[in-house]
Amino acid sequence: MVNHAMLMDFYEATMANGAILNGHDDTIAYFDMFFRRVPDSGGFAIMAGLEQLIKELKNFKFSKEDIEYMRKQKIFDDKFLKYLEEFKFTCDVWAVPEGTPIFPREPIVTLRGPITQLFLIETLVLLNINHQSLIATKANRIVRAAQGRSVLEFGARRAHGADASVCGARAAYIGGCRGTSCVKAGKDFDIPVSGTMAHSWIQLFDNEYESFKAYAEVYKEKSLFLVDTYDTLKSGIPNVIKVADEVLKPLGCRPLGIRIDSGDITYLSKRARKMLDDAGYPDCAICVSNSLDEYLIRDMLMQGAKVDIFGVGERLITASSEAVFGGVYKLTGVEDNGGNIVPRIKLSENTSKITLPGFKQSWRLFDRESGKAIADVITLHDEVIDDTKEYEIFDPEFTWKRKVVKDYIARPLQVPIFKAGELVYKSPCATAIRDYREQQVESLWEEVQRFEKPHKYYVDLSQKLWDMHHEMISKVSK
Amino acid sequence: MVNHAMLMDFYEATMANGAILNGHDDTIAYFDMFFRRVPDSGGFAIMAGLEQLIKELKNFKFSKEDIEYMRKQKIFDDKFLKYLEEFKFTCDVWAVPEGTPIFPREPIVTLRGPITQLFLIETLVLLNINHQSLIATKANRIVRAAQGRSVLEFGARRAHGADASVCGARAAYIGGCRGTSCVKAGKDFDIPVSGTMAHSWIQLFDNEYESFKAYAEVYKEKSLFLVDTYDTLKSGIPNVIKVADEVLKPLGCRPLGIRIDSGDITYLSKRARKMLDDAGYPDCAICVSNSLDEYLIRDMLMQGAKVDIFGVGERLITASSEAVFGGVYKLTGVEDNGGNIVPRIKLSENTSKITLPGFKQSWRLFDRESGKAIADVITLHDEVIDDTKEYEIFDPEFTWKRKVVKDYIARPLQVPIFKAGELVYKSPCATAIRDYREQQVESLWEEVQRFEKPHKYYVDLSQKLWDMHHEMISKVSK
Repeated sequence: MVNHAMLMDFYEATMANGAILNGHDDTIAYFDMFFRRVPDSGGFAIMAGLEQLIKELKNFKFSKEDIEYMRKQKIFDDKFLKYLEEFKFTCDVWAVPEGTPIFPREPIVTLRGPITQLFLIETLVLLNINHQSLIATKANRIVRAAQGRSVLEFGARRAHGADASVCGARAAYIGGCRGTSCVKAGKDFDIPVSGTMAHSWIQLFDNEYESFKAYAEVYKEKSLFLVDTYDTLKSGIPNVIKVADEVLKPLGCRPLGIRIDSGDITYLSKRARKMLDDAGYPDCAICVSNSLDEYLIRDMLMQGAKVDIFGVGERLITASSEAVFGGVYKLTGVEDNGGNIVPRIKLSENTSKITLPGFKQSWRLFDRESGKAIADVITLHDEVIDDTKEYEIFDPEFTWKRKVVKDYIARPLQVPIFKAGELVYKSPCATAIRDYREQQVESLWEEVQRFEKPHKYYVDLSQKLWDMHHEMISKVSK
Repeated sequence: MVNHAMLMDFYEATMANGAILNGHDDTIAYFDMFFRRVPDSGGFAIMAGLEQLIKELKNFKFSKEDIEYMRKQKIFDDKFLKYLEEFKFTCDVWAVPEGTPIFPREPIVTLRGPITQLFLIETLVLLNINHQSLIATKANRIVRAAQGRSVLEFGARRAHGADASVCGARAAYIGGCRGTSCVKAGKDFDIPVSGTMAHSWIQLFDNEYESFKAYAEVYKEKSLFLVDTYDTLKSGIPNVIKVADEVLKPLGCRPLGIRIDSGDITYLSKRARKMLDDAGYPDCAICVSNSLDEYLIRDMLMQGAKVDIFGVGERLITASSEAVFGGVYKLTGVEDNGGNIVPRIKLSENTSKITLPGFKQSWRLFDRESGKAIADVITLHDEVIDDTKEYEIFDPEFTWKRKVVKDYIARPLQVPIFKAGELVYKSPCATAIRDYREQQVESLWEEVQRFEKPHKYYVDLSQKLWDMHHEMISKVSK
């Protein structure tokens, strides 16, 4: 098990050391992780990365070497170094389960515990959730663009390091990809893996036909041929047909498919489809790859591309159109000596950076008849939305916009993960998360799923939270 | 030691299995890694990631579990599974040292060995070099924009997983950052770390003044205060000055600096500078952060921002303006039974995707007087550029553009890394690589370093390589 306790920002250590020296060792604090905008101006994001975060928190401890390194910084007190030596994670954690659609402003991870601990885990919380939520969200966009066709994740080589490729493949699968090319992700998370040949296979042989023949003899009905090494239409496809006729047919097999990786793949896919159909191989699948993303896939399908499988690499595994998921981790309250929660706020000249104070829960309201999600409501933690009764929601900015919701089901979004440092949650397997994600995305209106200017899903505040928030802004800004 | 042998694309395994079943176990092949364009349309990239690649190759082996997983795929022959079990890396590897400016098309890693081995390591080669070269290149752009001011890497929380943050911080340091906030990167690579406080520190206390005071009492002359929690100009800076006067001065210390993390930081930095100067703290540094990159930094400095330290996070650690470094790994030749190298080529309808055949070396020619780099020349491996003699270079596309180079030093760009699987190279420490990078970037003309439409640095081919390349294109395209 890799120990990532040291994967913190240095300020976490200076703050924890400072807190200890200021007698704040045992001050109980509350933190929320939330994000401010959906990447690619999309209508929603997909929560992911919780399983890896759980593992990090379960294994969180400092080695002798780590403490020695800290000592050498000559800035930390011995009390703090001893604290690190004896570190034991004892916090409460609540989180939105992986695969759930999530929206700006609502808490997706909430933590309660000694502030020194909560200081030290900030980066690990953000890192895991930001990364995988980014990729799951992007994958889901690409999968929606493919309109039911298979999307495979092919990006390991362009990922930002080993974790980015392996956990990225996991997130892409959660987001809706059918599988990955990354063998380690397949093994670690039981995700379907696939892949057949690179150009180097073809180049190894004296000519393209020989290379296809050699492959077909080994892989038979599992043969999928890369056709663009020399010339897709003049050489690649004719050689596939020849091998299908001369090698596979006598063995009683048919070719699985072809892959096109360069040129104008929309045009080539149409020509390839016709050539394969005419040769009697209408079941030979066409897989395409080459810097694809949701925009290109949408356009290709509009122009009649004949594609069965999209292999999506670099633009998915790096989410290159917007490579940052901007989740933040903010203090929302501290407990006083009597155990009362004193809410805390951060103001900002960027109004979007003003935080929501207090220990909170969020709820999703589903229409009882259609099953569609109506709105999310952020409440204080001790509020309960009783769905046997009507509930009035209102726009937190334009507060005269109000709506009474009836015949709905209210579901808390966050579930308990750790209780006093003990894990109380069992992560589902990647496939179960993927299934859950599919069902949850279906609960969103199509308008929210639109790529361009999606309908803004409502994330409202309870009256109680709204009042407290605005009271604090007035008070603190004075 | 984490074993990343399984971090391959599935096709690498199908190809290796196919090669073994086709009697190609011992076929000696040559591969080049190279890239096709510089991210952000820059003039050059910075090589990085070699140290991590070396570790991966040194530790490359398959566990029993790995082989069991492969067996379960029900597609691989027992011969192949046995091959994996007994896998031993025996290849030759040459590479451009980390920190070297690199250009499109030239080999940055060259490998020679049994093709089955070279199939299986493709993803690891690409992954490590692509990731760190991306970040080192981006960091160098940002550092150049900062015109001598300090740039610190602050992005761990937005990185694409743990490796992305730790190795990304390393690459950023190589590229020119002065340090990182990432403690693990500091410890693993002996990089300076820094950081002081988050908003949560300020929120922990009843008011901002109390929080600054508590911090100053612990950190004294090392105190750097985050000033934008409530209001930068009305609250943050006045409180810093008050604490400097009331807490630090009596202790004989002065404040190290302030950090501004929101609002219009150009404007705020100018106002802050004046307030601090007027209060008698002209030496109090101004650090700014908040989604910075080279473009924003350039504009801020043009508008007279008063900044000493730029903390650069998400846009550096994800290289978000262009998050992909598109290095590829292509077969360039195979040895026949007599040990002769038979060059191989890949054509493409995208002419930029046509590969350079053969076992090659590249050379950088430096002007003997100015020390400036004149051009790179890719030659066949057995060619030597003798810099005691004149050498004619020519544009590989417009071959009538020719130039005779005199009074130059010719230096081979790639150095031996592995010989028959034995490591023969010692990676310098990150600081040594950073120093080397600085000196090497200085050898490039300023015109090549320009952000907008940089001068295109010449990467030429030797006449012998050019002739072979064009002969092969004609031959294969028939």
